[in-house]
Amino acid sequence: MNYRIDNLQYCNWSREVFQINKEAGLDAVHVTIVYHEDYDEFLERLNQWNKLFNDNSDLIFLGKDYKDIAKAKSENKTAIFFGFQNCSPIEDDIKLVEKVHEHGCRFMQLTYNNQSLLATGCYEKIDSGITNFGREVIKEMNRVGIVIDMSHSAEKSTLDAIEISQKPIAITHANPSFWHEAKRNKSEKLLRSLSESGGMLGLSLYSHHLKDSKDCKLESFCEMVARTADIMGVNNLGIGSDLCLYQPNSVVEWMRNGTWTKEKNYGEGSKDKPEFPKQPDWFFDARGFGNIEIGLKKVGFNDDEINGILGNNWFNFYKGIN
Amino acid sequence: MNYRIDNLQYCNWSREVFQINKEAGLDAVHVTIVYHEDYDEFLERLNQWNKLFNDNSDLIFLGKDYKDIAKAKSENKTAIFFGFQNCSPIEDDIKLVEKVHEHGCRFMQLTYNNQSLLATGCYEKIDSGITNFGREVIKEMNRVGIVIDMSHSAEKSTLDAIEISQKPIAITHANPSFWHEAKRNKSEKLLRSLSESGGMLGLSLYSHHLKDSKDCKLESFCEMVARTADIMGVNNLGIGSDLCLYQPNSVVEWMRNGTWTKEKNYGEGSKDKPEFPKQPDWFFDARGFGNIEIGLKKVGFNDDEINGILGNNWFNFYKGIN
Repeated sequence: MNYRIDNLQYCNWSREVFQINKEAGLDAVHVTIVYHEDYDEFLERLNQWNKLFNDNSDLIFLGKDYKDIAKAKSENKTAIFFGFQNCSPIEDDIKLVEKVHEHGCRFMQLTYNNQSLLATGCYEKIDSGITNFGREVIKEMNRVGIVIDMSHSAEKSTLDAIEISQKPIAITHANPSFWHEAKRNKSEKLLRSLSESGGMLGLSLYSHHLKDSKDCKLESFCEMVARTADIMGVNNLGIGSDLCLYQPNSVVEWMRNGTWTKEKNYGEGSKDKPEFPKQPDWFFDARGFGNIEIGLKKVGFNDDEINGILGNNWFNFYKGIN
Repeated sequence: MNYRIDNLQYCNWSREVFQINKEAGLDAVHVTIVYHEDYDEFLERLNQWNKLFNDNSDLIFLGKDYKDIAKAKSENKTAIFFGFQNCSPIEDDIKLVEKVHEHGCRFMQLTYNNQSLLATGCYEKIDSGITNFGREVIKEMNRVGIVIDMSHSAEKSTLDAIEISQKPIAITHANPSFWHEAKRNKSEKLLRSLSESGGMLGLSLYSHHLKDSKDCKLESFCEMVARTADIMGVNNLGIGSDLCLYQPNSVVEWMRNGTWTKEKNYGEGSKDKPEFPKQPDWFFDARGFGNIEIGLKKVGFNDDEINGILGNNWFNFYKGIN
């Protein structure tokens, strides 16, 4: 059985988006449900999601473990797995790790660009690695079954997390920096360490992570995948598109600025280009999975490898979460 | 006019404690009102303090600036200045800096032992210095008039704070490490940088910061003050006793563990000595100021210098807060 999984989306959720994802053949999507929200605000997001599940029960349901991906496929639905892009919902309380897991959280980034209580983000000047509290939280995430996601973290913090975690970790949405130098992309050293520990890289389709941004060619992307497979092995690669479909630009401003600064911070953008970047024309939305399938074949991957990259590798990774 | 100021106490507050402080001649005390409390919990502490102010209005009132210290002296009362030992009440929100100032906060530690969102604590393995959010918060603290207190912070973070802050900072309660090596005590390099920038060191009477702990001799303490004055100048020294009078041991356990770990952390104590340490017999409570006065005279300080150390230096520092 082959599965199609997009392991990171943060869309402006609606029936239309769920229909597009189903049309794209997605059996599972890891969705970001919070960035900077604290625990109470996270509970509000849950209420919003419960309404989405109710209103679209013919298309989606909350996924708890890998078996729900198979269930979604058999029912022609998409399993939705919850994830956090920052650790804000656990605040400073180790006990909240178990609570957020009970509410469905399966992935949590230890940082979002800036320093958190757990680790250093990729936008800080100096990376001190995993903190005292971070060590405790990693242990607890391992225990309850939440994947450590280091997509927006700095390098030493990520290497520390790989070493400290008793279970493989994930970088759900980023690309290798050998292909496109960006603060958010990852070094070869880090990718090797990630794959050696059984961790996964979800390849990003967000233009700021792509060579030539929205003008990135499908061929260039697929050649990058081939080179990354040479480094990491083909079984540790998946897709984490970072799609932000239909989000207004006020959202990207909030993602970058949260409530931490009075100045405007442009993150991966700039003063001239503060908005969400445009997508490449071969990946406007998840239906672009079909284009990637064709592209991967052209650069020499066989069917098993392509099915692995487009979903089966994430499926196998999910087996080890709990 | 000479003032007596203890610039750090965290007592189990009661009429008895306020009477002792008045008996000791204290015109002002900087009191810790929160450690790990978030903003809402901070508001609850304010309610508790409002009751204390009501019930003991003949002894204490809330101090807002240096003029309240003179007012306290003239009315034979003690002005109470609020401070935080951690930045938890501002959560991840720059706007809360102004809010806590409106509620009376005049000192805020950027960290309490562990990494915070602003800086690194002295119990972390690696010190990455002031974070992105930390830079913004320091600017805002400077603007509204809250003193940056680095007593529990790591060295690079403290040196960064001295450099970044546009106003002098304080280490309200610690001693030099040349006298007693302790994670919480400070290096000569740091003390020089602190005094060169106009900052203050509040000398601590907490046994874990004292040479020979509770058996520390008054002479030894006062000789240390003399050597520290050689390094820092005599005008940058005050007292920040760190008195935790009448606190139950459950409180020191909470101070150390907050909600960040499931294991028990002993901080400056140890498994064999988890409790609050005993005070030296010449400083059971603030009435020990009298003993220090005698001791400082014996090691050669003149009256002006002694009055400076016991309060006037803090008084002058308070003039620059707002």
